[in-house]
Amino acid sequence: MIRLDTRDAGFADAFTALVEGRREASADVTRDVAAIIRAVRDDGEAAVEAFTRKLDRHDLAETGWRIEPATCAAAYAALDPALRDALDLAAARIRAYHERQKPTDSDYVDEAGVRLGARWRGVDAAGLYVPGGRAAYPSSLLMNAIPAKVAGVGRLVMVTPTPDGQINDLVLAAAHLAGIDEVWRIGGAQAIAALAYGAGRILPVDVITGPGNAWVAEAKRQVYGVVGIDMVAGPSEIVVVADALNDPQWTAADLLSQAEHDVTTQSILFTDDAAYADRVAAAVEEELAILPTAAVARAAWDANGAIIVVESLEAACPLVDRLAPEHLQLAVDDPQSLFDRVRHAGSVFLGRHTPEAIGDYVAGPNHVLPTGRRARFASGLSVLDFMKRTSFLGLDEAALAELGPATVALAHAEGLPAHARSVALRLRLNR
Amino acid sequence: MIRLDTRDAGFADAFTALVEGRREASADVTRDVAAIIRAVRDDGEAAVEAFTRKLDRHDLAETGWRIEPATCAAAYAALDPALRDALDLAAARIRAYHERQKPTDSDYVDEAGVRLGARWRGVDAAGLYVPGGRAAYPSSLLMNAIPAKVAGVGRLVMVTPTPDGQINDLVLAAAHLAGIDEVWRIGGAQAIAALAYGAGRILPVDVITGPGNAWVAEAKRQVYGVVGIDMVAGPSEIVVVADALNDPQWTAADLLSQAEHDVTTQSILFTDDAAYADRVAAAVEEELAILPTAAVARAAWDANGAIIVVESLEAACPLVDRLAPEHLQLAVDDPQSLFDRVRHAGSVFLGRHTPEAIGDYVAGPNHVLPTGRRARFASGLSVLDFMKRTSFLGLDEAALAELGPATVALAHAEGLPAHARSVALRLRLNR
Repeated sequence: MIRLDTRDAGFADAFTALVEGRREASADVTRDVAAIIRAVRDDGEAAVEAFTRKLDRHDLAETGWRIEPATCAAAYAALDPALRDALDLAAARIRAYHERQKPTDSDYVDEAGVRLGARWRGVDAAGLYVPGGRAAYPSSLLMNAIPAKVAGVGRLVMVTPTPDGQINDLVLAAAHLAGIDEVWRIGGAQAIAALAYGAGRILPVDVITGPGNAWVAEAKRQVYGVVGIDMVAGPSEIVVVADALNDPQWTAADLLSQAEHDVTTQSILFTDDAAYADRVAAAVEEELAILPTAAVARAAWDANGAIIVVESLEAACPLVDRLAPEHLQLAVDDPQSLFDRVRHAGSVFLGRHTPEAIGDYVAGPNHVLPTGRRARFASGLSVLDFMKRTSFLGLDEAALAELGPATVALAHAEGLPAHARSVALRLRLNR
Repeated sequence: MIRLDTRDAGFADAFTALVEGRREASADVTRDVAAIIRAVRDDGEAAVEAFTRKLDRHDLAETGWRIEPATCAAAYAALDPALRDALDLAAARIRAYHERQKPTDSDYVDEAGVRLGARWRGVDAAGLYVPGGRAAYPSSLLMNAIPAKVAGVGRLVMVTPTPDGQINDLVLAAAHLAGIDEVWRIGGAQAIAALAYGAGRILPVDVITGPGNAWVAEAKRQVYGVVGIDMVAGPSEIVVVADALNDPQWTAADLLSQAEHDVTTQSILFTDDAAYADRVAAAVEEELAILPTAAVARAAWDANGAIIVVESLEAACPLVDRLAPEHLQLAVDDPQSLFDRVRHAGSVFLGRHTPEAIGDYVAGPNHVLPTGRRARFASGLSVLDFMKRTSFLGLDEAALAELGPATVALAHAEGLPAHARSVALRLRLNR
């Protein structure tokens, strides 16, 4: 953890180093992934089977390619009732929030008599990547699948690796709850290739979303354009802006809730009180002493954590904008006045009783958010990621007479005479 | 041009070949582009100067890096008045259409007492790539710049190569009209790298859009994630669905207006009347005999054109969906009934008096549209491409008491105890 104070000499350089520090793995997997994609395109199912045998150590011909809906339904039914209720509550609230994201179509006639508009439709099919192992979170499955459902996607396909044949029952239960249509037990770049191009029994999809390791991320990047994908995701991060009225233990837990995800995650506290900064630093140590995930959380906090003392919380806002954090907690009595001063953040958690974790599960907004300063230009996952817009226009003879001459002039200026002619012929113009 | 009939034996295979035929250049420029980007990141302005000297054959130190606003204003003032009026009309109508795309923020309290919402903001800075040479279209500049302006982007940066130092006055006039803040006379992958990472006097931007050659497209793909980009664009295409009541010459001109862009473009006619198909084929030949751009248009039509006779125009709709064309003209008396049956198209032109060219310039909707079957999942350029959404949530003690226990249960189930603890501490729960 580094400790900074905006009044220190050297603060500007130290903060710039924090902003520009790259925590993202730059594993050079480009060539390996290209080879896997090529193999799946050329050899289809056989290639997927071979990569699965090699990388996940099970034989799809024996374990089966699909996990049947009945298996998912059984996993859901077998859940501890309290956990099932929690999952149900999460799904219902995520659905309610995302229903409001559905765009409205437009269709109007303007003063020139031109009919204009835009029509939104869900894509035909979406593929959701669900990692195996530690990052296999049922909450992530809900956050990816429910927006697709709300968008009206016809076919929802999930791929998830089952290393050594092992299946995660909680993920299957969530798949049942989310209404996934097909579950395939494949992962890695080979699963992304199968979703993008199809592979025998697996028909291609139109959009692929969901988190994955460096191979999965690179595969998504390589098939981008063949299908739509969600934003590249890097290590998670949180910025907490807190005054001295907060319980230091609460703030420490908030910082560590990000740190426990992975050693590459980043937790940053801004506060206007140096003594409070000391108390939080001490509370982090106390929490780490009892946290079951302390090994990961300590590594992340030591390597990437920061406590920054500012002259006023308002003065923190431009610094927050430079970080453009995935998560921003404003733990003050009047969070709105700070929120009004911040331009760049993926999701903002307002007030002392809104820990970030509440947004990971049940609040409703999506927890798939832009990381690594991408909140400057990118947004969290939404219904729009699973829809596409068709614009339309319609002119009658009178409207064409009004707009046609300008089109003819511009087409000629751009050296496109057939463009001009398609209009001029209809207007019976001599050019 | 190929001629197909849905009643022919072998139609299914021939149509599939048409759908899957790749017209996109697969120039392997990946490594070259990576080297250029690396050089610009390492050496900044010096690298940009060197690549410009080599590729555009002029020395930025002599010709100057920037084209000043006064130069653009002078180019606008010097326009032929009729052309200036046409450009003004186009800009006003594009602005009016895109104003309606501005998303509305949401901010509400739900039945659990949770404040929820989403806030949209324009990005701080956008970079627009404007090609030099044949593809330097002022209309494209308007179509890229105006949505960014409407989005509220603070800083609009244009890059455009000036090979051998030559400047396109029409493009500069459009830059003035669109309100571009900075014009840099650089192009290629080096310009994309300079926009994404900054290079000395050129500060980095957040989003890069605009068409370019294979190097530019690959550079955009490689910087995706560092900045936002628009969809990868391939060769342009049009599908015309027309009955026998259309003037064959009009339809021929429509097909050729796409073909004249480039030899890789594709024009396809669906009609329910074989005799009309013959008349259009003949009219295409007549038009080609007098068209100044016939060399390109004939090459495109010969290589990629198609006329497909269908039993009914309704039967064409599922075939159109498989093509998911960039442009779809429905040249019939009741275009709406066909539009209702089509799911996938970038932009739809309704009725006999709506040639596609009208949408290229003055109608209002964006002419930057998904190509190469990407209308299955992608949309035309819009105000949203220059904005990002921040979600937010706020809970008070009572709301946290209601949603907290489910969060604690799910966090423990996912093996994330610090997540659980950040909630439990606030609820004074013993876990």
